[in-house]
Amino acid sequence: MSLVLDPTAQDLLFREARTANTFAEEPVTEDQVQAIYDLVKYGPTSMNQQPLRIVLVRSVEARERLTEHLSEGNRKKTADAPLVAILAADNEFHEQLPSQFPHFPQAKELFVERETRERSARLNALIQVGYFIIGVRAAGLAAGPMTGFDAEGVNKEFFGDGKHSALVVVNIGKPGENAWFPRSPRLTYNQVVTTV
Amino acid sequence: MSLVLDPTAQDLLFREARTANTFAEEPVTEDQVQAIYDLVKYGPTSMNQQPLRIVLVRSVEARERLTEHLSEGNRKKTADAPLVAILAADNEFHEQLPSQFPHFPQAKELFVERETRERSARLNALIQVGYFIIGVRAAGLAAGPMTGFDAEGVNKEFFGDGKHSALVVVNIGKPGENAWFPRSPRLTYNQVVTTV
Repeated sequence: MSLVLDPTAQDLLFREARTANTFAEEPVTEDQVQAIYDLVKYGPTSMNQQPLRIVLVRSVEARERLTEHLSEGNRKKTADAPLVAILAADNEFHEQLPSQFPHFPQAKELFVERETRERSARLNALIQVGYFIIGVRAAGLAAGPMTGFDAEGVNKEFFGDGKHSALVVVNIGKPGENAWFPRSPRLTYNQVVTTV
Repeated sequence: MSLVLDPTAQDLLFREARTANTFAEEPVTEDQVQAIYDLVKYGPTSMNQQPLRIVLVRSVEARERLTEHLSEGNRKKTADAPLVAILAADNEFHEQLPSQFPHFPQAKELFVERETRERSARLNALIQVGYFIIGVRAAGLAAGPMTGFDAEGVNKEFFGDGKHSALVVVNIGKPGENAWFPRSPRLTYNQVVTTV
């Protein structure tokens, strides 16, 4: 085998891990979320921008406000999940660059234009979404990432400041009964990879 | 500890893994790339879209064509890396949906509009970039992801069909001498995570 990663870890993070559609009642604790963050925060971003922001939707009232903006098919599973997280890009991430990228004090100035900033925030936060999903699995939990929602509605509802863009909503918990659809196929190596 | 993932794997993928800026000469084999793909292909995407495409830039001639479009500071390390991969979104991913999302035969029709398609391709391919970087590390290799390049130039040079959007260029190999800059800080949990 060409991988160094232990096969058990391969299974946990990729091969056996699946998108869950139902969840057990067991809660997801603050400690678990903290452990996930303390792992995935090390994933690299351009100039250490780290634009990903995470809103844990725990209260009944907030959960109701969220589900309203989800597409029909995503509502019930989101209402029932032990934890729901809104993953968003902070379009003002550049404010943190002086402390986060200290060896290049001018970094912040590269992002004075809002369009440049939003594009970079979105790009890097989405890469971080990939890390986060792996992190949820590293905690022995199942993730149910969803893009079927009204992003503008969620932004208004949860980020009134106009400075954040919701990207993905993720249900998190131990899988429940009949949690999985059958595994869908995957593209072959030759369909995805070319050499020049 | 709240994580199930073995601490050695945590170190390999996140805690000890670093963005490499120099590389050893040892080549990255086709077998290694295949093993990486065969792991990360299982990472979830919306409706199993799998829009990520990977171009392995192996020939001297192709490497020269690529480095021309990189920002100054990225050229030398890319010229010297054992392997360079262009990670791109396939904006025509919807053509694969009938085979990749067979239980919903109408899926392809949701993406007849080019703008909707490109937005979804970009979103999901970027999440897959996150998986890919983790996969490179799972193979015991260092990744050096870069966004400092002229994307339009790379698209014209390597994807003449107008159907692909380059997202990230990644140098891959065993780390060389002085491969690391000092680790930059990370945002705290409270700077990133809020609860509602």
